[in-house]
Amino acid sequence: MINENYRQMLQGKSIIRQLSEYAAQRGSEIGYDQVFDYSLGNPSVPCPGEYTDALVRLLEEEDPMAVHGYSPSLGIESVRKAVADSLNRRFGMEYEAKHIFMASGAAGALAHGFRCVTRPGDEILVFAPYFPEYSPYINQTGAVMRVVPPDTDSFQIHFGALEEMINEKVMAVLVNTPNNPSGVAYSKETLCRLADFLERKQREYGHDIFLISDEPYREIVFEGADSPYVSKFYDNTISCYSFSKSLSLPGERIGYVAVNPRCKDADIIAAMCGQISRGIGHNCPPSSVQLAVAEVLDKTSDLSVYERNMNLLYDALTRLGFQVVKPGGTFYIFPRALEEDGAAFCMKAKKYDLILVPSDNFGVPGYFRMAYCIDTEKVQRSIPVLERFVREEYPGIGR
Amino acid sequence: MINENYRQMLQGKSIIRQLSEYAAQRGSEIGYDQVFDYSLGNPSVPCPGEYTDALVRLLEEEDPMAVHGYSPSLGIESVRKAVADSLNRRFGMEYEAKHIFMASGAAGALAHGFRCVTRPGDEILVFAPYFPEYSPYINQTGAVMRVVPPDTDSFQIHFGALEEMINEKVMAVLVNTPNNPSGVAYSKETLCRLADFLERKQREYGHDIFLISDEPYREIVFEGADSPYVSKFYDNTISCYSFSKSLSLPGERIGYVAVNPRCKDADIIAAMCGQISRGIGHNCPPSSVQLAVAEVLDKTSDLSVYERNMNLLYDALTRLGFQVVKPGGTFYIFPRALEEDGAAFCMKAKKYDLILVPSDNFGVPGYFRMAYCIDTEKVQRSIPVLERFVREEYPGIGR
Repeated sequence: MINENYRQMLQGKSIIRQLSEYAAQRGSEIGYDQVFDYSLGNPSVPCPGEYTDALVRLLEEEDPMAVHGYSPSLGIESVRKAVADSLNRRFGMEYEAKHIFMASGAAGALAHGFRCVTRPGDEILVFAPYFPEYSPYINQTGAVMRVVPPDTDSFQIHFGALEEMINEKVMAVLVNTPNNPSGVAYSKETLCRLADFLERKQREYGHDIFLISDEPYREIVFEGADSPYVSKFYDNTISCYSFSKSLSLPGERIGYVAVNPRCKDADIIAAMCGQISRGIGHNCPPSSVQLAVAEVLDKTSDLSVYERNMNLLYDALTRLGFQVVKPGGTFYIFPRALEEDGAAFCMKAKKYDLILVPSDNFGVPGYFRMAYCIDTEKVQRSIPVLERFVREEYPGIGR
Repeated sequence: MINENYRQMLQGKSIIRQLSEYAAQRGSEIGYDQVFDYSLGNPSVPCPGEYTDALVRLLEEEDPMAVHGYSPSLGIESVRKAVADSLNRRFGMEYEAKHIFMASGAAGALAHGFRCVTRPGDEILVFAPYFPEYSPYINQTGAVMRVVPPDTDSFQIHFGALEEMINEKVMAVLVNTPNNPSGVAYSKETLCRLADFLERKQREYGHDIFLISDEPYREIVFEGADSPYVSKFYDNTISCYSFSKSLSLPGERIGYVAVNPRCKDADIIAAMCGQISRGIGHNCPPSSVQLAVAEVLDKTSDLSVYERNMNLLYDALTRLGFQVVKPGGTFYIFPRALEEDGAAFCMKAKKYDLILVPSDNFGVPGYFRMAYCIDTEKVQRSIPVLERFVREEYPGIGR
């Protein structure tokens, strides 16, 4: 018989996807350039030419049996080594190839990371606001996701709330910095304090607590932001990376797990990922994509558009009286809505063809997310519309 | 804490991989051309030039944002449509795009198929001999794999054994034709009888029983073989396909699930795969690979080498007195060993640098598998060695 759990999930259509579909449909009516679609977190700049060149060269010059042949289940050895070397060079780490597992984007990396360090019934803490897909990602492992309420003044970690939420069933803590949806990067101070806290709790409970660090936005960091490499702070860290945003390759499903060499069982966690992959049908990212990415590890797309867009929106939002924490990276901003009900606020914005995502699904009510991975010209055109929306719908509330 | 289940799995290293590693190491000592490595089922011919051309054209001429952008979670709509059309054209089916889910090879397709139609504790029947990876594939879903003993005269289905094994907890039956490791294709007669049997049992138990058809070797069928399309025979069929062997792209992780349009809940099973993929971190095969494959759906690599090799080996093995069923496809042959203990037989062969895989892991003792996806020239050179091995180790047994 059909598995009812998965059938039930069909009901829960993502609000982000619904809004994005609405935007596309509305665009077909009035012209897509008239729809200010801030719904989807999809890179708006092409991959670097070096990536295309590397892949074309592999296809045209290398043996097709090597380019398209089976990858070992942990990834191609030379690629794992190249990833380790790049991380060591950039962040002063001491990874070896054995600490790297090549994964199908951050989603694949997280699927493996969660399964390595939890058993069904164990708890994983996540911090609000959080990427809504964490919920199905974690639920399907059998572990239980629990949400730590936010510090809305800074969107750093609310340590008081964390202290209240933790208990001895917590085997992993998930962080995402720079953060989707807040755009905020965890500071050195936050990460030091988190490491101290987790070390204390490890001693108290007598078991390891792993920090799973979801880092798809690691390379999108803005001027002046304090966004250090998470794994430097806490030994039991498993970093989950994706090239989707840094190289604008979201459809190519390529990323990795990097296990801190000082992590408990560091020498076997990547190998365990290989065992996990047997049951979830992963069996490695494509060989050709692994080989091409390995040639551009230290490159990125031209990511400057995101910072330009952020500055335009941050200035406009603060000028209009929104309460908003300045993003340190990503291509998201997360202002407080102008009424209690974030969904009602976004519904009103829709009338102005401003497509904003209400915050309820991110674990914080009363806010909204704007994904500003769109053309700067459109951001500029959206600002007078935003202004008119605020003036007409919330007279006297905005400035 | 580390998940002990996955840690335990690290002990169970695949015998096939061990033998393949031994062959590589032995090759580095005496020259790889002197090692007759029949261990690994890895295509020995390159992908068709049309595939490379299609991918290079996409990379050089199309918008990188489209080629590398997110794929919808069920696959790119035009690709799903093209797969449906190709199957309809070739097998007289009536698939629509909604019945197709693009998957990471057959492993990914199976991971989704199993989860769609079973719940933890349900039983899935597989037929010996079977691909050993089925065991971790199924175990990690929480379902229970049970093995139906073989009919060693034909390696078709042993219906008496099937009748004894089935019970009302069986929610799915897994077939693999043409078969790894036997090379045998299920005949029209076998598939008719299986369909009749399952329909009877569905009525008896009052619930659906799904047929999951693992078809990575569907395009490697030899002259005169009777190898019909499985889904034609039984409505509740979920076909799991991979391009790994037909296009020699095993490292590119591309395949699909095709749900028979007359299957129970046919309209939602592919959509359920999309929900399952959220928890196992799959999120689609790479967009560029989907798009390139869609342009060569009716092409294959030059697969003729496999039939040439099969004929050479089948003739030699029968001449030497082996009991062996003639393969109808794949690149495997599965003769009976010349002593009870297949592992002991293969150990002796190793002394002659003949790398054969004992059958125990395939669920049948006393046989061995040869993967003849190697150069024909090497197959030819291996035959006198095989002959010497039999003469010296089993005097009087072989002819």
